[in-house]
Amino acid sequence: MKINICQFNYKTAECKINTQKLHDVLEKSNDEVLNVFGELSLSGSPLYNKSLYSDLYTESNQLCEQLCKTNKSFILGMPNKDENGNCYNSLIFVNKGKVLATASKKHLSRFDLNFSTGNGIESLTFEGKKLAFGFLEDLKSSSLNCGDTEVLILCGNTLFDKDDEGKLISTLSSYAKNLKTQIVYVNRVGAEGCYVFNGSSFVVNEKGEVCKQLDMFEEQESILDMEILKPETIKTPCYEERIYKASVLGLKEYFEKNHIKKAVIGLSGGIDSAVVVVLGVAALGKENVTGILMPSEYSTEHSVSDAEKSAKNLGINYLTIPIKGMFHASLEAMKPVFEGTEPNTAEENLQARARLMIVMAVGNKTGAAMLNTSNKSESAVGYGTLYGDDSGAISAIGDLFKTDVYRLAKWINRNEEIIPFNSIEKAPSAELHYDQKDSDTLPEYDILDKILKDYIENHKSKSELIAIGYEQNMVERVLHLFKINEWKRHQEAPAIRLSKTCFTTDFFNPIS
Amino acid sequence: MKINICQFNYKTAECKINTQKLHDVLEKSNDEVLNVFGELSLSGSPLYNKSLYSDLYTESNQLCEQLCKTNKSFILGMPNKDENGNCYNSLIFVNKGKVLATASKKHLSRFDLNFSTGNGIESLTFEGKKLAFGFLEDLKSSSLNCGDTEVLILCGNTLFDKDDEGKLISTLSSYAKNLKTQIVYVNRVGAEGCYVFNGSSFVVNEKGEVCKQLDMFEEQESILDMEILKPETIKTPCYEERIYKASVLGLKEYFEKNHIKKAVIGLSGGIDSAVVVVLGVAALGKENVTGILMPSEYSTEHSVSDAEKSAKNLGINYLTIPIKGMFHASLEAMKPVFEGTEPNTAEENLQARARLMIVMAVGNKTGAAMLNTSNKSESAVGYGTLYGDDSGAISAIGDLFKTDVYRLAKWINRNEEIIPFNSIEKAPSAELHYDQKDSDTLPEYDILDKILKDYIENHKSKSELIAIGYEQNMVERVLHLFKINEWKRHQEAPAIRLSKTCFTTDFFNPIS
Repeated sequence: MKINICQFNYKTAECKINTQKLHDVLEKSNDEVLNVFGELSLSGSPLYNKSLYSDLYTESNQLCEQLCKTNKSFILGMPNKDENGNCYNSLIFVNKGKVLATASKKHLSRFDLNFSTGNGIESLTFEGKKLAFGFLEDLKSSSLNCGDTEVLILCGNTLFDKDDEGKLISTLSSYAKNLKTQIVYVNRVGAEGCYVFNGSSFVVNEKGEVCKQLDMFEEQESILDMEILKPETIKTPCYEERIYKASVLGLKEYFEKNHIKKAVIGLSGGIDSAVVVVLGVAALGKENVTGILMPSEYSTEHSVSDAEKSAKNLGINYLTIPIKGMFHASLEAMKPVFEGTEPNTAEENLQARARLMIVMAVGNKTGAAMLNTSNKSESAVGYGTLYGDDSGAISAIGDLFKTDVYRLAKWINRNEEIIPFNSIEKAPSAELHYDQKDSDTLPEYDILDKILKDYIENHKSKSELIAIGYEQNMVERVLHLFKINEWKRHQEAPAIRLSKTCFTTDFFNPIS
Repeated sequence: MKINICQFNYKTAECKINTQKLHDVLEKSNDEVLNVFGELSLSGSPLYNKSLYSDLYTESNQLCEQLCKTNKSFILGMPNKDENGNCYNSLIFVNKGKVLATASKKHLSRFDLNFSTGNGIESLTFEGKKLAFGFLEDLKSSSLNCGDTEVLILCGNTLFDKDDEGKLISTLSSYAKNLKTQIVYVNRVGAEGCYVFNGSSFVVNEKGEVCKQLDMFEEQESILDMEILKPETIKTPCYEERIYKASVLGLKEYFEKNHIKKAVIGLSGGIDSAVVVVLGVAALGKENVTGILMPSEYSTEHSVSDAEKSAKNLGINYLTIPIKGMFHASLEAMKPVFEGTEPNTAEENLQARARLMIVMAVGNKTGAAMLNTSNKSESAVGYGTLYGDDSGAISAIGDLFKTDVYRLAKWINRNEEIIPFNSIEKAPSAELHYDQKDSDTLPEYDILDKILKDYIENHKSKSELIAIGYEQNMVERVLHLFKINEWKRHQEAPAIRLSKTCFTTDFFNPIS
């Protein structure tokens, strides 16, 4: 028996386009191959409230019938409505034009909005083999009688997680060994909004050995003869390469699927914008990215020269628009309110917001979308200006702590200086008042990030953090800053999700 | 048997403060009264990721023990961890210091992040009566042996829904009749972030007749003798009063729980800002709201005079800060990019963003939060400037279509002119270029809102909308605008949720 693992990228709610892709595969497929297209391959995912509309189901049904007419064998994922009007996330097993079985998802995930609970994993005999097929989520508590299942085919839309070191493979390997069955896992690839799907579909044999793994982040097909599976050594890209590729893929897809060609980004000479512009160029091409330098009276000389170098190293267009005129006009306008007061964040925010106005004006005039340059450490403690540098269409590094941004920068520079060395080496500064440094108001990033990771990723509460050995005052200040900035995080640019604790998709707290 | 329905407001993750409130009730309670505090009364809700931290459970347990020491009887809602580390949303039934039973939620809702599936509704005998107690969500598929249950006590955190006309009461009435049992439903009141809980706790007898309903939006206690329940006529406030009170409560709680006293709002002379400032004054007091008039060269005379009238009618402070200087400074700065191009939304957005800078600067300097003034019709079609008038700490009318805003305005003016008549009567305009009207680029709001309601609330797809009789071109334009503005809706000010389709809490679509 031969299985074609189709690790594809799909366009959400563009059923016709997706069907065309699947149709092309079936047209050239041999009769004896079972093509596995994966979860919601017909409709794309996440569907959000698209799954509320009846035409999605009507269209899906029609398109499934079209695919059946190829007389080939396949497992198709699609939204599916039964005669009672209940909607399911279903996998349809089709053999030479005939539907043999349907497995609908039982353990619904957060992407299964509006779907009802289905029947779970289904078993059938196909070409003399005992098969079972269904959704990854349904495996754990499956009442599957696996005594005689020879091949278990699972589909899923597994999200990229930078910290995952092959956990899914080892889980499914154990299952395979225990159940004495081969397991094929078909994941999708690509991105939708903030979500990146990493691919890495794989096959394990009945001893739990990995016999095939498809690449991360790439559309691939791979036909496997299940009679002659051989163990294979798998290679996983390093941490930096994984986050680099996931971010670039996320950006690329955001722009492509929104039909936007060009990006605009403010270049401060700091490490964050220097890294994001590299990711932007990798995603969109250097001809499609414009950098804007917006010096003020508080800008150091190196901030201009580092920003210029960053643009020149990449060969992108850049222009310089000083904010002095706008800043002074806004101070003038604000005189009735500001006069006689001590300068505070109000004046600082005016500068950050003047810069936002400029970047967005370039974007609005040239049809380009703004790349946000905030990192996760800043978002956590509110070190950024809402409707200023916190803004943008999409954030490439919003789910990376500052120390990860440094790590990524050094990796990008592994062969040559792409990111100016000085941007990596100098002390981070917002440059919103004279001689300002991030460390004036924040702990050093290596400490701050450790506290934040223990708090956010390891769920250590205040008392536990202090018990670990962090200084009490520092813990209290960081947790206080985290708490009072929740409202800002709710309005920041959506961040490409690289972890289970991304602020714009996963890690929420009360805003009041 | 006597039951004290405690329809209270709780502070999220402020367990000590909530416990004090409950303790005070128990201290003055008679021994024979069963005090029902409702879902997560100890911790508040929604907890979001607060439920990941172990100290929440340790503290909850300790505080529950404190309450037990009063030797009174009560049903307490709290986060609860078992010996295996599984966490539940639980109701603890305590009789004179002793825990008699625990009902943990089985059918988890979106607010039950990180909780495990519990045992559902529990039965027990209490003071000679057959009781059952548990969560509202667990009723529908309960395997409850109700043959002999005399009183069923349900707790929940039901959200306000402007379109709900007593649906819950009629559902529980049917249950009561079928099961031949009395039902007591205890709901919380108050707001948390975007979410408003309406209270309206009620009791139905075994014939399904309503015998008591507590007020909407008010903290109340009501002791009922379950032996002598008498049917009562219930009064529901009219639609306009309901949305008015829900919005005011949402605003009030957002500010109180965030420890912010003052609000700042841009007054354009249009109906949206005129309505929001009324709600803001009702929530915070006139001394705590500042209006800002920000005329430009495109502002009509009436926009200034209407805005002034709106401020004067309410007796609030207002100041005028023209945007001319900032707008021209930004045009000057943008010359290298704008020169030789046709004026478009880029120039218009500069004005909206200059206004945002001013309102936020007043807020930052005076410690006030900005009230957003966008409505749901505008958000739906993207008629607003992101990082401009789409911004703000909280949006009071963001879940109200424009026609609902008019309806609310007329109701506010039912006795006297609070909102300037002219703001209600004139044609809506953004005044970002000469002689601009909303209807230049949008369908008239009465048509637009009908299409939007059918699309968003009634889930009518394109073909169905055209079949209803809307003009095809108009349907296509509206749905296209809806689609391409999803990314903007993801960054707009969080809106107080008044319906099941609020854009910042419920109704999401793919952003790419």
